[in-house]
Amino acid sequence: MANSYGKLFRISLFGESHSEAIGVVIDGVPSGIELDMNEIMFEMGRRAPGKNAFSTPRSEDDFPEVLSGVFNGYTTGTPICVTMRNTNTRSSDYHPEIIRPSHADYSGKLRYNGFNDYRGGGHFSGRLTAPIVFAGALAKQIIKKQNIEVFSHIKNIGKVHDDKVDYVNPDISALKILKNKKLAFINDDRAKDAEQEILSAKGNADSIGGSIETVITGIPGGIGSPFFESVESRLASMLFSVPAVKSVEFGIGQEFSKMLGSEANDSFAIEDGRISTKTNNNGGINGGVTNGMPVVFSVVIKPTPSIGKEQETVNVETKENITAKIQGRHDPCIVQRAVPVIEAATAITLLDLILEAKTYA
Amino acid sequence: MANSYGKLFRISLFGESHSEAIGVVIDGVPSGIELDMNEIMFEMGRRAPGKNAFSTPRSEDDFPEVLSGVFNGYTTGTPICVTMRNTNTRSSDYHPEIIRPSHADYSGKLRYNGFNDYRGGGHFSGRLTAPIVFAGALAKQIIKKQNIEVFSHIKNIGKVHDDKVDYVNPDISALKILKNKKLAFINDDRAKDAEQEILSAKGNADSIGGSIETVITGIPGGIGSPFFESVESRLASMLFSVPAVKSVEFGIGQEFSKMLGSEANDSFAIEDGRISTKTNNNGGINGGVTNGMPVVFSVVIKPTPSIGKEQETVNVETKENITAKIQGRHDPCIVQRAVPVIEAATAITLLDLILEAKTYA
Amino acid sequence: MANSYGKLFRISLFGESHSEAIGVVIDGVPSGIELDMNEIMFEMGRRAPGKNAFSTPRSEDDFPEVLSGVFNGYTTGTPICVTMRNTNTRSSDYHPEIIRPSHADYSGKLRYNGFNDYRGGGHFSGRLTAPIVFAGALAKQIIKKQNIEVFSHIKNIGKVHDDKVDYVNPDISALKILKNKKLAFINDDRAKDAEQEILSAKGNADSIGGSIETVITGIPGGIGSPFFESVESRLASMLFSVPAVKSVEFGIGQEFSKMLGSEANDSFAIEDGRISTKTNNNGGINGGVTNGMPVVFSVVIKPTPSIGKEQETVNVETKENITAKIQGRHDPCIVQRAVPVIEAATAITLLDLILEAKTYA
Amino acid sequence: MANSYGKLFRISLFGESHSEAIGVVIDGVPSGIELDMNEIMFEMGRRAPGKNAFSTPRSEDDFPEVLSGVFNGYTTGTPICVTMRNTNTRSSDYHPEIIRPSHADYSGKLRYNGFNDYRGGGHFSGRLTAPIVFAGALAKQIIKKQNIEVFSHIKNIGKVHDDKVDYVNPDISALKILKNKKLAFINDDRAKDAEQEILSAKGNADSIGGSIETVITGIPGGIGSPFFESVESRLASMLFSVPAVKSVEFGIGQEFSKMLGSEANDSFAIEDGRISTKTNNNGGINGGVTNGMPVVFSVVIKPTPSIGKEQETVNVETKENITAKIQGRHDPCIVQRAVPVIEAATAITLLDLILEAKTYA
Repeated sequence: MANSYGKLFRISLFGESHSEAIGVVIDGVPSGIELDMNEIMFEMGRRAPGKNAFSTPRSEDDFPEVLSGVFNGYTTGTPICVTMRNTNTRSSDYHPEIIRPSHADYSGKLRYNGFNDYRGGGHFSGRLTAPIVFAGALAKQIIKKQNIEVFSHIKNIGKVHDDKVDYVNPDISALKILKNKKLAFINDDRAKDAEQEILSAKGNADSIGGSIETVITGIPGGIGSPFFESVESRLASMLFSVPAVKSVEFGIGQEFSKMLGSEANDSFAIEDGRISTKTNNNGGINGGVTNGMPVVFSVVIKPTPSIGKEQETVNVETKENITAKIQGRHDPCIVQRAVPVIEAATAITLLDLILEAKTYA
Repeated sequence: MANSYGKLFRISLFGESHSEAIGVVIDGVPSGIELDMNEIMFEMGRRAPGKNAFSTPRSEDDFPEVLSGVFNGYTTGTPICVTMRNTNTRSSDYHPEIIRPSHADYSGKLRYNGFNDYRGGGHFSGRLTAPIVFAGALAKQIIKKQNIEVFSHIKNIGKVHDDKVDYVNPDISALKILKNKKLAFINDDRAKDAEQEILSAKGNADSIGGSIETVITGIPGGIGSPFFESVESRLASMLFSVPAVKSVEFGIGQEFSKMLGSEANDSFAIEDGRISTKTNNNGGINGGVTNGMPVVFSVVIKPTPSIGKEQETVNVETKENITAKIQGRHDPCIVQRAVPVIEAATAITLLDLILEAKTYA
Repeated sequence: MANSYGKLFRISLFGESHSEAIGVVIDGVPSGIELDMNEIMFEMGRRAPGKNAFSTPRSEDDFPEVLSGVFNGYTTGTPICVTMRNTNTRSSDYHPEIIRPSHADYSGKLRYNGFNDYRGGGHFSGRLTAPIVFAGALAKQIIKKQNIEVFSHIKNIGKVHDDKVDYVNPDISALKILKNKKLAFINDDRAKDAEQEILSAKGNADSIGGSIETVITGIPGGIGSPFFESVESRLASMLFSVPAVKSVEFGIGQEFSKMLGSEANDSFAIEDGRISTKTNNNGGINGGVTNGMPVVFSVVIKPTPSIGKEQETVNVETKENITAKIQGRHDPCIVQRAVPVIEAATAITLLDLILEAKTYA
Repeated sequence: MANSYGKLFRISLFGESHSEAIGVVIDGVPSGIELDMNEIMFEMGRRAPGKNAFSTPRSEDDFPEVLSGVFNGYTTGTPICVTMRNTNTRSSDYHPEIIRPSHADYSGKLRYNGFNDYRGGGHFSGRLTAPIVFAGALAKQIIKKQNIEVFSHIKNIGKVHDDKVDYVNPDISALKILKNKKLAFINDDRAKDAEQEILSAKGNADSIGGSIETVITGIPGGIGSPFFESVESRLASMLFSVPAVKSVEFGIGQEFSKMLGSEANDSFAIEDGRISTKTNNNGGINGGVTNGMPVVFSVVIKPTPSIGKEQETVNVETKENITAKIQGRHDPCIVQRAVPVIEAATAITLLDLILEAKTYA
């Protein structure tokens, strides 16, 4: 069941980079939602490759076909299956005997007893995040009816850091325009610096990592549960499903390890009958349950392992140590393309949590 | 189902800090395991409070009673229920109308519509980690038969950092003795510095945070699955279930965000027919699946919010802003008590993953 | 996970006939339900043995201890663990080398690799239905707030059949008094005939089977889902969990196999704006989803395999064919004790379905 | 999650009768299975309509397209998505305001708040069993490698009953040829009688019900678990997912209700070191776990509610009682087409149980 996620709003992912198609079955969709395909295509466009110098020239034919679960433009409540054909594939670029460093070639071979489809990373391909974005765009539409929104900015690319977000009163208008930017930096000067970092990596046939910070606004208190269904557990489980994510932290996260309780604690205050916290170091979650403040977390995106530089590795057929250059088309930086994926993963998890919350409200 | 975890090896947690008892039902236990209660009690002792100046003087009566699933000293394969009575409780210390900063008092009240047992944090109490340690100690015994072991050291307490661990060839003998130390630092001098940090926080009626790094040795390649059942997803989901954990990172984690691909990638090498990586920045996981290297991750433990200092908060009955000192018994630092909990959570997840791996091997 | 059931209202069963205790963890309980322990004890009393000549003289000490999840008499919304101590046990009655015909001695031995607790059937014991009745009694209290009630009568014991129930307009007053009868027959004359059947079997050191019919009133239309979560699938899955159940049929069930569509179809009619069916052959379920009519089903309870007569079997140690009489205390008929178990299993399933229905309403 | 089934071998169903396509995602498939598409197409042909006078003339374009999870003719171990386009549809036949008796039109409307795709029964259509047959045909190939086979015959159609099957030593050669027969009767004379029953129903614009008996050979003892994961629970849950199934019984099922324990019990015997039972009234299952004997069960298939006769019903728009004839193409009997569906449902469940058994063996 590696490819299913969710309890009430549930997605089942399928496909390989070079199979006939990739796609997703989305179950537990509330009935009667008018599908805004423009919005869905906009979200998919944010993730799509080939848009600029930062990303791979492979022009994916990501056009999604909805096979079921929608009737007269509205969701029926039965499963929505969406497929995206794999058309623009160059299988000859791949050599299964050469296991690419930090890719899943070797672990995947072990996992599937050598029967995995190795072309383009197969099922491990980042291309599988396209159906996640589709499902997430649908989830976003549904949670937005309850005024819950998901915003993300790039926290850093390499050594270039964006401005900090106010966790208590985030500047919504600054967050709203991020999705139309080439690089989702709040500070446009930093965006330009980051572009230089990316182009420099590209010039060296190299890649560069970064991190993304996400803010969920409008989420009511009392969502989630203690322990194994904590909001942190549920979100982290989904976020670590996104390829290249290697760290997830909530609120101020790592900084907690250097702090005193008196510095870290978020004091409560009441004003006009509404309880809030003065700081939001905990990222809107106490005991695994939302407290009514914005939920905030960050993820680290490792530099894509697909680089043009010569690397040391192993030929698993000849069992020799070799050096090899990875051919094919690569992104020098996948952080900006990961932004809509992280938001989609977040929205999927939130919708599932919110549906469950109806059962205990 | 907030209180159940696992697919094949499954635990169901129950209890409140001041209910009759806390405990856990452990299902999917392989039959025929000779239960080493000494080992289990040793692990529970590592977590128990009241052992020294660093932890709360509340002397928990954690003695576990095994109600089922064990016959003639061996596991039967049917569910093991373990209970621990709550005896040493001082209910008068708690005032439900005063919501303690950064505790689950307020979010819990929202979650359970005001019916939550507020005494001692109720179901949100850190005391609920005792049954997790029991289940984890059992899981450790089972995975050890396959030479899989879980070691943890304290990475830092406040500004005091322990020595680094070699991710490729960890020093097993140094790791093995950690569980007998008062503070699980590899470097004993740093341990003394950390003690001072803790005692200093205690002296100020304050608390202090830290982080824990865990190394899993002996885990074969090919364990786990892509996407939603990635080893990262599964471990993170469980680790974020542990109260006070606010960050989880795999391998070098956050450092990836500042790196180039050429620096970050783990080159493969073959020697005597055995494939390994030269570095282990990815912490033994590629594409969500183990690659045969040690699995390494770190978690951040926030400073316990229970401090003796006066804090600003709200009286939810009178709806007034107030200041209050939290009465009761507190740990100045919970990092050292969290170490066996993190190891237990890890072992539970690993056993579940390893049982599932039998189905695709 | 053989011992957990449910998606949102979830029970985890544990215990063996002769272990320290048996019990259940009940998770997903709505918070704020005032626990009516008298009602729960009444339901448990209906199942308890030793009440009359029809049942085993073993006087179970079924007194349930609530360890968690209840505070000031109300459910907290966190897991309720209930245990029942095993006190009145006579272990010497059992001989593991002699596998009792139609019991789980042999299949259980295979399942658990010989490590199962064989005393009194161990985990397979009918005694494990006591915690199911506890959980079901709680579920009944919750669904009754929505006017959903579960009634059962004995359809037949051996060749003695009770009167038929009207599936469209069941006689609620006749159903309500069933739970106070020694044998839950609507027709008291038939009850007397059935008593004679049971006593006759008892006189011959034999046992006798029967069937139970259940009617759920007040259940709204639109509950359940097509295919794998059909109301039939969900109920049958739970009903076949009850030991000795070997058949489950909905509505007129088996009769359908002999009918024409024109005879079998339930015509719709509207009166005062309310749509109902003129017959209810389908037992209130179309396409797996309730249609607003009473839900009706029957289960067959096989004669308990524990009989005093000499039977042919195998000594699995000496590997010889033998004849043996089963010692110990036996029920000549378990149908009447199964009635509250079937109702409990039904209520547990219904509550889970109704909670889920909140997410798509 | 109404549309997902299974723990380790998992299927997710999607599609409506008149949506773009129907299909299934099959996850947890062991890697390295050579896909025998001829065998799969043979099984799908057994279910396909339009083959003879007994079934609907709608010629489904059931040709399955495999989108993922197969590489070079072998399963990769990643999800297999299969779609079947809906091409031969006549939407004009359907009138959503007229709710057809005993169909899911009304309950489906309630379930999905009026947004369900009503054309041809939408998601409730029997056509959705085609992907189940695909998944089942794959499962059959996998379990056959362990010598586990699934055979079914028609037990009766209306009043015409087939010969009985020996539950202890079923005549395998007689069972093997059933799948090539027009009607899966062991006794060919009875098959002819059944044909007359069906044609007689057809002549009257009516339909007729029946029942199917299934025998699983080669299944080892010790499969399944007590209580909620009993083999009966697992199979029944899946079997009641098949549209039109209204009764499931194991072994002699309903007959148990009329029997004494001394008649019903299956005595054990040992011969050449192999333990078996002399009778197999329990259908190979004791305490929810297989005992090594053939597993036997029967299901009742109600007469399809789609009949050409005039029926009483309701117009839900005008809210009037009306009479209506259902237009469109109908099967007079769906029992023979249900046979491969029941076998498929069985094989899917068995494979899931067998994969899980690897974890406790």
